[in-house]
Amino acid sequence: MQFTAHELGLMLNGTIEGDPEVSVNQLAKIEEARPGSLSFLANPKYEQYLYTTEASVIIVNKDQVLTEPVKSTLLRVDNAYSAITILLEKYNTIKLNKTGIEQPSFIHASAKVGENAYVGAFAYIGANVVVGNNCKIYPQTYIADDVVIGDNVTLYPGVKVYFDCRIGSNVIIHSGTVIGGDGFGFAPLPDGTYSKISQIGNVIIEDDVEIGANTTVDRATMGSTIIRKGVKLDNLIQIAHNVEISSNTVVAAQTGISGSTKVGENCIIGGQVGIVGHITIAKGTQIQAQSGISRSLIVEGKKWAGSPAVSYTDNLRSQVVVNRLPELEKKINELEKIIAELRK
Amino acid sequence: MQFTAHELGLMLNGTIEGDPEVSVNQLAKIEEARPGSLSFLANPKYEQYLYTTEASVIIVNKDQVLTEPVKSTLLRVDNAYSAITILLEKYNTIKLNKTGIEQPSFIHASAKVGENAYVGAFAYIGANVVVGNNCKIYPQTYIADDVVIGDNVTLYPGVKVYFDCRIGSNVIIHSGTVIGGDGFGFAPLPDGTYSKISQIGNVIIEDDVEIGANTTVDRATMGSTIIRKGVKLDNLIQIAHNVEISSNTVVAAQTGISGSTKVGENCIIGGQVGIVGHITIAKGTQIQAQSGISRSLIVEGKKWAGSPAVSYTDNLRSQVVVNRLPELEKKINELEKIIAELRK
Amino acid sequence: MQFTAHELGLMLNGTIEGDPEVSVNQLAKIEEARPGSLSFLANPKYEQYLYTTEASVIIVNKDQVLTEPVKSTLLRVDNAYSAITILLEKYNTIKLNKTGIEQPSFIHASAKVGENAYVGAFAYIGANVVVGNNCKIYPQTYIADDVVIGDNVTLYPGVKVYFDCRIGSNVIIHSGTVIGGDGFGFAPLPDGTYSKISQIGNVIIEDDVEIGANTTVDRATMGSTIIRKGVKLDNLIQIAHNVEISSNTVVAAQTGISGSTKVGENCIIGGQVGIVGHITIAKGTQIQAQSGISRSLIVEGKKWAGSPAVSYTDNLRSQVVVNRLPELEKKINELEKIIAELRK
Repeated sequence: MQFTAHELGLMLNGTIEGDPEVSVNQLAKIEEARPGSLSFLANPKYEQYLYTTEASVIIVNKDQVLTEPVKSTLLRVDNAYSAITILLEKYNTIKLNKTGIEQPSFIHASAKVGENAYVGAFAYIGANVVVGNNCKIYPQTYIADDVVIGDNVTLYPGVKVYFDCRIGSNVIIHSGTVIGGDGFGFAPLPDGTYSKISQIGNVIIEDDVEIGANTTVDRATMGSTIIRKGVKLDNLIQIAHNVEISSNTVVAAQTGISGSTKVGENCIIGGQVGIVGHITIAKGTQIQAQSGISRSLIVEGKKWAGSPAVSYTDNLRSQVVVNRLPELEKKINELEKIIAELRK
Repeated sequence: MQFTAHELGLMLNGTIEGDPEVSVNQLAKIEEARPGSLSFLANPKYEQYLYTTEASVIIVNKDQVLTEPVKSTLLRVDNAYSAITILLEKYNTIKLNKTGIEQPSFIHASAKVGENAYVGAFAYIGANVVVGNNCKIYPQTYIADDVVIGDNVTLYPGVKVYFDCRIGSNVIIHSGTVIGGDGFGFAPLPDGTYSKISQIGNVIIEDDVEIGANTTVDRATMGSTIIRKGVKLDNLIQIAHNVEISSNTVVAAQTGISGSTKVGENCIIGGQVGIVGHITIAKGTQIQAQSGISRSLIVEGKKWAGSPAVSYTDNLRSQVVVNRLPELEKKINELEKIIAELRK
Repeated sequence: MQFTAHELGLMLNGTIEGDPEVSVNQLAKIEEARPGSLSFLANPKYEQYLYTTEASVIIVNKDQVLTEPVKSTLLRVDNAYSAITILLEKYNTIKLNKTGIEQPSFIHASAKVGENAYVGAFAYIGANVVVGNNCKIYPQTYIADDVVIGDNVTLYPGVKVYFDCRIGSNVIIHSGTVIGGDGFGFAPLPDGTYSKISQIGNVIIEDDVEIGANTTVDRATMGSTIIRKGVKLDNLIQIAHNVEISSNTVVAAQTGISGSTKVGENCIIGGQVGIVGHITIAKGTQIQAQSGISRSLIVEGKKWAGSPAVSYTDNLRSQVVVNRLPELEKKINELEKIIAELRK
């Protein structure tokens, strides 16, 4: 895509200083920009680059004072940061603005797909599926029988949704993520083998959820595994059967949450965290990356670290001493000798 | 699906108390059940809910004594727990009872697919592949050339099986799992680059194995990576080249087992465990979640924890002291002062 | 595939001792080989098996001395190890030597696919895509609009490449890996919800890179996430937005690297390592499995371990004391009592 400074000025309701006909075809950071790039200055820390950048167009705050000559065309707007956010969204909306049904795709005769949909080639939509309006079902996606999906949902290529699952509106799920695979449930038998426990529940994903790539959310044994409104899950996360994650909790990549655990609202959980099953994590809890949570966290809004986790500050203090342990041991041995001498 | 209490009674060989014509269309826990739900009481701990639940039908043990009036229709059976297990299986069998070849799918002219198969749309079955009877090959699954698969196997949507791999009978593999990708083998060259070592072995998966979603099992450099009879692997697990996992071992999500390691029978390995390459894990070993195993575990049936792992009880004891380390250090410093004074 | 000893002799420029007409159809380790197998002896440690193996053909060094009679046909070559490496490569080249466009596949009218390509069934190649010569695009692979791919690239089944990404030449990407999914970027709002930050950058993968199965490499917020020449990534790895991994660095399975971190050249990073965002890892750094890196590592070529990581040797020393902590605590308590007595 290519825009002139003039066109950008109209889009962002800004004023031009310099050549209005210069055109840009990519966005770049001001310190890395090449000719043909659009850049922006929102943070005064980067002001120096205003005078050295090769960007063709720079978006700046309306009141930006210039202390040296600038080569680039300037586009003055009320708020440079908001302007760039608006532009990013417009760019992505254009890039991702697919509609229509590509062939070959498989849409069961009993499935209902709403208005203004994109269904990519090799997508599979099973029996009795209901897909709302303005949804994008990318190529090679699988939606099993009896799944219900709301409006404005994007399933990127290769997402798999098992039967009976429910997905709300304004949900984005990235490639390779599996929703509704069987929970890991097996009953040990006396001969050492295991008998599979059928997993007949489902997964419910509420509105405004985003889930990254190659994450797995298992269906409940009975009832539902639930991802509440506004939750954001990163890539390669494991959510086991019957887990419930409450509204507006964010979870970083490669974390695993074991069966039947309930995570409160507005928690922030770092990457590679492990949480055991059948516990409760209080609202507003923050958990450092690589922590291991082995019991319920009852107090709201507290910060935890370590495996097994203790309070964040306790963990910091212990960790400092752990790294001094060899010297501490030496000291103890010396004290021992001195005392032995004193006793003589 | 919808059943009346009467129909359920015939299926489970039970007797009805209450309205035999009331119908249910979902299963629910007795404490969460809504009208239209089927529920069950197997654990006496939940008996209180018998009198308050909104479930339309409840399966109870034949000899269940009632101490208050019950609104729901009761279905008395010999063993409520077994009855519900039977029902779950029946439900899933009906839900998952697909057969036939959907179009478009790709089945190479030289491939043989057994009786009563389901091959979903966009599934790919390569040259010389042999698939046994009663198999379900879901949409978007890939089975490369020369793969052999037994009877009663389910490959969920998007499973990928590379060439030459062998899969036994009664195997279930969930969506996104990759069987037979190249092992991670590279030879360092003097100039700092790496030369790929061709991985020409395969993966052998024996009977009765279940593998979760988005797990990866790499092919052997030479010979075979082997998953023995009855092994159960959860989601997002990494099994490296030439690993062998013996019968009836279960591995929880996000664990990684490095190259050429041999894991014994009937082990229980927690989530997010890391196991180094070229070691042996004894039969019946239990490993706590997030442990790191850096050497062979020789003694059978022992429990390990920590990274690097020590015996489970030693780890518990050390962990307690780790969390008291700051106070311990303080104590040592005080002792030091006292001794310095004593010496004067 | 089946070869006679005579045919192998011609391929490897070797001389035959024994029956030249005996044929082999698989490779096996000398200690495990069955009749019909080709084996080799490169390491003198395994010489004993030369006289007991059931291999039909064994490749040996030209100057191998025999101290007992050998049942197998011998194939003498200049260097047995090199010979077997050549054979492995030839085997794989034949196994993976697919060409042609299978149907149904989806190739947008504006896409350009080079000479001698393999495009598998159900593969999707979007608008304006450029694919070089000698590429293998396996079934169910997704290449979004405006992606550019070099020569001799293999994308195994189910790889997903989002729009605008760039892939160099001689790149191999295994099944289920996702290139260019959105970075995990959300701005917290005053009401506790999160607003998505559009991720409009891309991923650049340079020449000679290999990436394992089910790994995720996120697109940059702006600019590029970059995987430099010769990098090797294992399975189930998370590479966040705006990360840069320099040439010839290898990363083992299940490691996660957070946003904007820059990893130097020729690093060796173990499995299940976590690296925080916005830091720099010096050239030649080695990181032990399961370590956690929470700050920049400045010194080149150093070895690190632990979470949070310290130098490898310091970690070893501390770890030894951690496991003796309960006994150390006991000793301190005894010293305390003795001192209390001494003071009296």
